[in-house]
Amino acid sequence: MGEFDLIETYFRWDNVSDDSDDLEGVIIGIGDDAAVLQLESNQQLVTSIDTLISGVHFPEQTPAAAIAHKALSVNLSDIAAMGAEAKWFTLALTLPDVDHAWLKEFSTNLKALAAETSVNLVGGDTTRGSLSISIQVMGTVKNNHALLRSGAKPGDKIFVTGTLGDAAVGLASIQGHLDLSNEDKAFCEARLNYPTARLEDGDAIKEYATSCIDVSDGLLQDLGHILKKSKASAVIDLDKLPLSECLQNLNIDLANKYALSGGDDYELLFTVPAEKQQMFTEKVIKKNPTQITMIGEISNQYAIGAILNSHGINLTGTGYNHFSDDISDNDKSDK
Amino acid sequence: MGEFDLIETYFRWDNVSDDSDDLEGVIIGIGDDAAVLQLESNQQLVTSIDTLISGVHFPEQTPAAAIAHKALSVNLSDIAAMGAEAKWFTLALTLPDVDHAWLKEFSTNLKALAAETSVNLVGGDTTRGSLSISIQVMGTVKNNHALLRSGAKPGDKIFVTGTLGDAAVGLASIQGHLDLSNEDKAFCEARLNYPTARLEDGDAIKEYATSCIDVSDGLLQDLGHILKKSKASAVIDLDKLPLSECLQNLNIDLANKYALSGGDDYELLFTVPAEKQQMFTEKVIKKNPTQITMIGEISNQYAIGAILNSHGINLTGTGYNHFSDDISDNDKSDK
Repeated sequence: MGEFDLIETYFRWDNVSDDSDDLEGVIIGIGDDAAVLQLESNQQLVTSIDTLISGVHFPEQTPAAAIAHKALSVNLSDIAAMGAEAKWFTLALTLPDVDHAWLKEFSTNLKALAAETSVNLVGGDTTRGSLSISIQVMGTVKNNHALLRSGAKPGDKIFVTGTLGDAAVGLASIQGHLDLSNEDKAFCEARLNYPTARLEDGDAIKEYATSCIDVSDGLLQDLGHILKKSKASAVIDLDKLPLSECLQNLNIDLANKYALSGGDDYELLFTVPAEKQQMFTEKVIKKNPTQITMIGEISNQYAIGAILNSHGINLTGTGYNHFSDDISDNDKSDK
Repeated sequence: MGEFDLIETYFRWDNVSDDSDDLEGVIIGIGDDAAVLQLESNQQLVTSIDTLISGVHFPEQTPAAAIAHKALSVNLSDIAAMGAEAKWFTLALTLPDVDHAWLKEFSTNLKALAAETSVNLVGGDTTRGSLSISIQVMGTVKNNHALLRSGAKPGDKIFVTGTLGDAAVGLASIQGHLDLSNEDKAFCEARLNYPTARLEDGDAIKEYATSCIDVSDGLLQDLGHILKKSKASAVIDLDKLPLSECLQNLNIDLANKYALSGGDDYELLFTVPAEKQQMFTEKVIKKNPTQITMIGEISNQYAIGAILNSHGINLTGTGYNHFSDDISDNDKSDK
């Protein structure tokens, strides 16, 4: 396969960004037995790995550009959810054959997103097999300042960035389960294929948030992870779920179902203490380029992990909780 | 697939070692969006990723125990070759189906090697697909003390740990290309399936070595990587190649061919300045549990990358350089 040549040809970007500061921290990149990276002395390393498999995590006809974008974004999203700064990544790419057009499109788009987010590719491995992409992103956070799932307290307000359910609607559209206008179709499919990791939002909220997770498996599942780790329950106001115009065009029950259970949005779901809510609104929400919406409150009134709506109806186990859909139902084991 | 449950069931080892010091550095392990790890202030991060694919990097009938051992060892070997201390790893495991007997054997053996080498599993991702294992090991090295490929100087002596060619002979035996005694067969197949990462040797040599690489693609190829990065050539004394009893039982030309070109031994190949040779012999070689053998010298007399024997015959491009064998010929792109 000439794997060494593939890395040299497609993935050896000597300077991914015009800003030379971005290369700080890379002592040795690709080309030795291992990469050598420098953290500052008051920093901890934050790292996450995710694998995308063709036909499982994305439809087989997905363009290489989208696969590259998504594979890096889903990992950047985990770093964002820790309130950390993404710095470096490694790529393990398994390919059924050497398709130069595919590789060029994949590497061009991977490099573009890497440059945009100021992360450097520091190691790689290409092998032959069914199409699969494992990316491990490494970032840094100030000592003991990572945003964990375990920090939510009763009374904390629950917030989410962006809008919910778009990616799942995009997938349903691709699979022929929903008939959308051309505009809505384009929007939701772009949300599925080209998710945005909320790195800047993670940075903006980190001084206020008590817990954080990214919405990869759906709001209910991911809020459930926070609740289990924080030993709490939650009440969600369904009227406040942030819906895109596309979802607003659907029947409201269907839209809520997608917003509550659809995966792959990669929005940040986080909690802020009630006493900081006003300052958070003034200092962050009003200035933030991405919409941030308060959708509910952490409670200690119900069983650990329980999520109720504001009428007291339990939302878990009501059919909201699962799509039987392989592609959106990709539980991430490290989430 | 219940991937979350697979990680919880098989890969959530709360304390991999009896020595609680080994857990130092793991601030947050499996179970959040990302792991949080602590380096000391005078340390750099060293990291490498390698993927093993069934049928490419190991024969399909390889036992789960061997796959686990090898997948972790080949990555630990890269850390050893940097003179670094291995500390943490992540696992991206792709499985065709949920085979609990296989998973139990795989995880038990992965855990045993992790405990033996004091590395902690800090993140994982399981997905469904063709069997493949990506492991990324992270370690630390004192600031600017990593052993690189680029540091060899003319006059430096070339050393190698252990014996060479055993794994390739083991593979040839499995594939029916060589007929070995039962004892030789068991030895060489164990060398192929259960390679030992030379972590302690990497630690022992690090104050003396000017360059280092692990022998994954064969002595000639891997020495070639050092020579290209160090802009030098080399002379190897074939009579000094360290051969196991198994290889000594073969025809000497065939044994040399395996020793020069066989991959997957994961021995350390490194250089030491001539003026330090005596002290290195006294302080390290004589005390080291693993055999260390001087096999040649770095030169500036020939073209960059050229490797000659002591009779002046060029060893590269003579048929020594390649086995046409998929399994041992797994160029590592990050090597």
